[in-house]
Amino acid sequence: MKLATVRMPDGGTRAVEVTEAGYVDLGAPDVGALLASSAWEAGDLVPRHELAPVVPRPGKLFCVGLNYRNHILEMGRELPEHPTLFAKFADALIGPRDTIALAPESTAVDWEAELAVVIGRTVRRASEEEAAEAIAGFTVLNDVTMRDWQYRTKEWLQGKTFESTTPIGPVLVTPDELPGGVRPRLVMTCSVNGEVMQKTDTSDLVFDPVTLVRYISTIATLRPGDVIATGTPGGVGHARTPARYLADGDVLVTEIDGIGRLENVARTA
Amino acid sequence: MKLATVRMPDGGTRAVEVTEAGYVDLGAPDVGALLASSAWEAGDLVPRHELAPVVPRPGKLFCVGLNYRNHILEMGRELPEHPTLFAKFADALIGPRDTIALAPESTAVDWEAELAVVIGRTVRRASEEEAAEAIAGFTVLNDVTMRDWQYRTKEWLQGKTFESTTPIGPVLVTPDELPGGVRPRLVMTCSVNGEVMQKTDTSDLVFDPVTLVRYISTIATLRPGDVIATGTPGGVGHARTPARYLADGDVLVTEIDGIGRLENVARTA
Repeated sequence: MKLATVRMPDGGTRAVEVTEAGYVDLGAPDVGALLASSAWEAGDLVPRHELAPVVPRPGKLFCVGLNYRNHILEMGRELPEHPTLFAKFADALIGPRDTIALAPESTAVDWEAELAVVIGRTVRRASEEEAAEAIAGFTVLNDVTMRDWQYRTKEWLQGKTFESTTPIGPVLVTPDELPGGVRPRLVMTCSVNGEVMQKTDTSDLVFDPVTLVRYISTIATLRPGDVIATGTPGGVGHARTPARYLADGDVLVTEIDGIGRLENVARTA
Repeated sequence: MKLATVRMPDGGTRAVEVTEAGYVDLGAPDVGALLASSAWEAGDLVPRHELAPVVPRPGKLFCVGLNYRNHILEMGRELPEHPTLFAKFADALIGPRDTIALAPESTAVDWEAELAVVIGRTVRRASEEEAAEAIAGFTVLNDVTMRDWQYRTKEWLQGKTFESTTPIGPVLVTPDELPGGVRPRLVMTCSVNGEVMQKTDTSDLVFDPVTLVRYISTIATLRPGDVIATGTPGGVGHARTPARYLADGDVLVTEIDGIGRLENVARTA
């Protein structure tokens, strides 16, 4: 099943199932609210509207750093013992076709293609089985980062949570539709103006989705609609020689085969 | 004016004004919702109920590290050029008399008394004057921290956002009632089982509340009910010789003269 959140002409949003016949209204304002409700019923087809962030206001949005095995090893580092976790706030999120706001205060806006887990059940201190069952599905996220602000201090938050920078979507795909299920084996690519910058298999994670749900649920209860962005592989602009950052008019495409494609134009805000 | 969020017998909460006559119902479910509404009217007195976190679900909860001047200088460090920012999620918050959950997975639970700013107006890229006007008031917060988890990786989030650890309240006090106004000059103390561990003047900040609102509003729109915890002075348990952490049954008291007192018992969850 593929789920999306669409913007309606009245300014609101609706959770829909994406089918060949079109978008089917599921009776909830967005996919986050849908996952938090105990049941949903398919209703009428809705016209094809613009897509909103698939989960517009996650209660918690955890991001993982340093999680792609090949990238860590090629950098000559040791594999980490614990996942590096940081936060974004929901104000950072935009839809799969929305404009990325280039803040004039940053001159180093970078991309980070990521597979994101969306939580579907309430879990705390989850067992392996509970963690797997708590995963409603997967979506695509680009953890767009202001590198200059990220490295102003040792804590990354301020470079990670700039408003209207982080596309998420286009849809949530349930694990039963993906090769690898709750540990998806999918090709993820990130390109800028058609040039491929990042390409990886999403199964090359040090801490896989089930492990991350278990780990994070030790810290806090994970609830329906919470999101975990699982980290990015090599190929970010900051690590290139010379460094390469997003400029006004650049088109950032983030795609995971089997889930979908984010296509976002960067614009000076 | 002093505002609080009280728990009602039906399981809900209400925003109230704290007056000598008692708690006056302000017609909103909590102080966060109250600040987000354009106006409020005083209603009937409500019975004295248990206090909830004064803002139960801030949309964004920013915390500041390394912000007390004397403490930085006594450690032999230079004053920072930029504030260090990190996040907590709302699930970490508890009320002013609630139990601090000592997770069995941590053996190093520490205290950090802090003055917290509560936002009352929507601002982005605030001028000095707009930033001052955006401050609805101040409250007390203890940024309780799992030190072992904080230092597992370079990013502090996982040690900062353990569920049900972080008391906030008891009330929000508007700046007009405080010496120093939007840059309050107040004595803050933190004690464990009656022994004073931290004591400072809240005006000894490198980045004062107005400066923090300006800085953070560059990154994202600050909205009514958002919270900024302004950092902690010296005297945390981790820096003591030998280190001292919270144990089952310990009573943590966090108090700012002119705002109020948090009194929380730590209990193994």
